[in-house]
Amino acid sequence: MEFAFDVISAEDYARERASYEPLTDALRTLIDVGIHTAVDDATVQEALGHLEAATRLLQQQERVSTSTLRHADTGRPLAWANPAVGLRNAIAPPMIIEHEPDGSCWSEFTLGPAYEGPPGWVHGGICALLLDHILGEVASEGLSLPKFTGTISVKYLRGTHLGQVRAEAFVERSEGFKTFAKGYLRDSEGVTVEAEGVFIMPAWARDAG
Amino acid sequence: MEFAFDVISAEDYARERASYEPLTDALRTLIDVGIHTAVDDATVQEALGHLEAATRLLQQQERVSTSTLRHADTGRPLAWANPAVGLRNAIAPPMIIEHEPDGSCWSEFTLGPAYEGPPGWVHGGICALLLDHILGEVASEGLSLPKFTGTISVKYLRGTHLGQVRAEAFVERSEGFKTFAKGYLRDSEGVTVEAEGVFIMPAWARDAG
Repeated sequence: MEFAFDVISAEDYARERASYEPLTDALRTLIDVGIHTAVDDATVQEALGHLEAATRLLQQQERVSTSTLRHADTGRPLAWANPAVGLRNAIAPPMIIEHEPDGSCWSEFTLGPAYEGPPGWVHGGICALLLDHILGEVASEGLSLPKFTGTISVKYLRGTHLGQVRAEAFVERSEGFKTFAKGYLRDSEGVTVEAEGVFIMPAWARDAG
Repeated sequence: MEFAFDVISAEDYARERASYEPLTDALRTLIDVGIHTAVDDATVQEALGHLEAATRLLQQQERVSTSTLRHADTGRPLAWANPAVGLRNAIAPPMIIEHEPDGSCWSEFTLGPAYEGPPGWVHGGICALLLDHILGEVASEGLSLPKFTGTISVKYLRGTHLGQVRAEAFVERSEGFKTFAKGYLRDSEGVTVEAEGVFIMPAWARDAG
């Protein structure tokens, strides 16, 4: 379970981001539209033709590198593909995570209809996904240390409204190879979900410290 | 937080499913392709043109009903939009959940590259999302009772390989308005993640029992 990362230059990262981010955003729009469309089957078939044409175009050349890259200047992993933060993964809202000097993290982002569980509310499992990710980021110092979730407990205080939300996380304490992190999800009316997690550095990484 | 469901006939459900499911599957393919494409910017622009054309076609008519429908024959909610099981939500793998006569639930499905966290492994938060959902299904008897996650604890025994996985859940016990459910995620080599959850019937629904 040891990972190699390809390095990407700041210039290539900026260029790829400018080119591929609008593509991912267009797919995010299509996910929402696809849930709610009520057009007839002939129109669906016409739309399908466009989606298949886009697929063929994009499949003409594919990356063979690992899915996670390391930025040449910052040294940080860039999770293009990650389903919580990946700028190139249409499943991700994405969370853009800010790192404060004290080590804590936060992110403000919008959860639209694709993340709905009960009508009008965010799916509880989506809250768990996003909190797991931001707790992992804070425990691993921005994914720069290899740490994996051992356990996570998520407590739902009330429903989270679809729309603008804020996630935040901080490290409570560390004991040997274990890091204890805590975090919250908030909607416009306050904290909706609390999470506590234990993150563990795997055996293969301990000697490298 | 009380929900109204529109009823859909078996015939309309079958027709809509036949029409819209291939559309969602085409979007699932595009999500994966979008993560991995390495085509030049001119080709991205051409693909974007197709995505925008598809969006305009699908936006010509949209459902105004609630996002969750109730099947006229089975009486069960049909979560078209749900990010874990929604047949019309490209974010969902989707899990197709089977209900056994003893009340337990299971689902076998594939997690492709869009669900990747560490290279080659399923994102831990995706495991949490899917287990939260299947525990909720088993606790609410197939979403036919209004029950919401109170707390869920997820324990990661080891990494989950991308590919074919199985989720399963059962009710351990019930106490008043609380239901205690437990479940597992397995890959080809065995159990990878355990989850325990407490699901609560909200106050507004208690009188209706």
